Amino acid sequence: MASAIDFYFDFSSPYGYFASTRIDALVAKYQREVKWHPILLGVVFQTTGSAPLTAIPLKGNYSLLDFERTARFHRIPYNRPETFPVSTQAAARGLLWLRATAGEAKAAEFGKAVYQAYFVDGVDIGNSANVAQIGAGIGVNAAALQAAIGTPEIKEQLKREVAQSIDRGVFGSPFLIVDDEPFWGFDRFDQLEATLKNGKI
Amino acid sequence: MASAIDFYFDFSSPYGYFASTRIDALVAKYQREVKWHPILLGVVFQTTGSAPLTAIPLKGNYSLLDFERTARFHRIPYNRPETFPVSTQAAARGLLWLRATAGEAKAAEFGKAVYQAYFVDGVDIGNSANVAQIGAGIGVNAAALQAAIGTPEIKEQLKREVAQSIDRGVFGSPFLIVDDEPFWGFDRFDQLEATLKNGKI
Repeated sequence: MASAIDFYFDFSSPYGYFASTRIDALVAKYQREVKWHPILLGVVFQTTGSAPLTAIPLKGNYSLLDFERTARFHRIPYNRPETFPVSTQAAARGLLWLRATAGEAKAAEFGKAVYQAYFVDGVDIGNSANVAQIGAGIGVNAAALQAAIGTPEIKEQLKREVAQSIDRGVFGSPFLIVDDEPFWGFDRFDQLEATLKNGKI
Repeated sequence: MASAIDFYFDFSSPYGYFASTRIDALVAKYQREVKWHPILLGVVFQTTGSAPLTAIPLKGNYSLLDFERTARFHRIPYNRPETFPVSTQAAARGLLWLRATAGEAKAAEFGKAVYQAYFVDGVDIGNSANVAQIGAGIGVNAAALQAAIGTPEIKEQLKREVAQSIDRGVFGSPFLIVDDEPFWGFDRFDQLEATLKNGKI
């Protein structure tokens, strides 16, 4: 099997969420696997000098419209979260812990469940108890997950992984790397698929 | 005929150039017309706090790759200009003068010719003599065009039009407005076309 696709995302990114609803079907079609990498855009933005989309004059209002129109266009369920953006450390740490203790497939299942909770079901994923409950919904021990989220080890691991993603050139969400070729944005899934199908464009 | 589509762009924007190669066929298909609005991203960025793509850490390198890959993906001729970004005042003023003196169709023809000169033929469009020569190539009096570019009236008009575009929420290039619905980016042409075909998404 060809190498896995690296899927970088922030849990508060609507376009990352859209990507999360399509990535499994896409990689399955081309006999690939996907590795989920939660990042923290707040940290990335310290490198790029950027800010959350919705905080940028003019672009902010447009973005709110584009999130909703893009969801309708692609027929993806989407309900604008009340709190946006939200702190995503707890969810990101939870995913890293699950990857280490339960494997990549469970980590991916958790990633999709967190996105669905935040962008469809209105759950505040900034709250670690809520994140633990999302884990419980897919058969994870909620108490163990919540405890893990608070350990210094997992905090350090997330910092390290975010730094590594920046070293790799990741600056937004979603950001996908296929055989060293980077793709930024849900709106590059057409080019991503063409690359999976035919090789480098 | 339904109302014209407003097409905002900066002459140094690769994605604006890509849009310029597709906008005519798109609007013709849906019995629309298009009005070309040159803007100055440098002025817009003072409002949004942004910077030229290629000047942003990490995003800059990616953008250079994305310009070329997007051109290949859509089979659009593209040669990376030596000077990038470039000052686009002269070309923008020329387009406004042509619109006033020769009509919208000539202005659009000029717009496409400037983009082609810059992104395909390697012409430095920051130079007003070169801009006048591009005009000559489509039958415009080069001396009259070059003189017009330097008048206080046309300078004021461009300032006014850029301010109006910002008032309308324009913050990037290309930026298209169809019946008050905004679309930012060449990668929203799919949503733009769906809207022209079926009405609001």
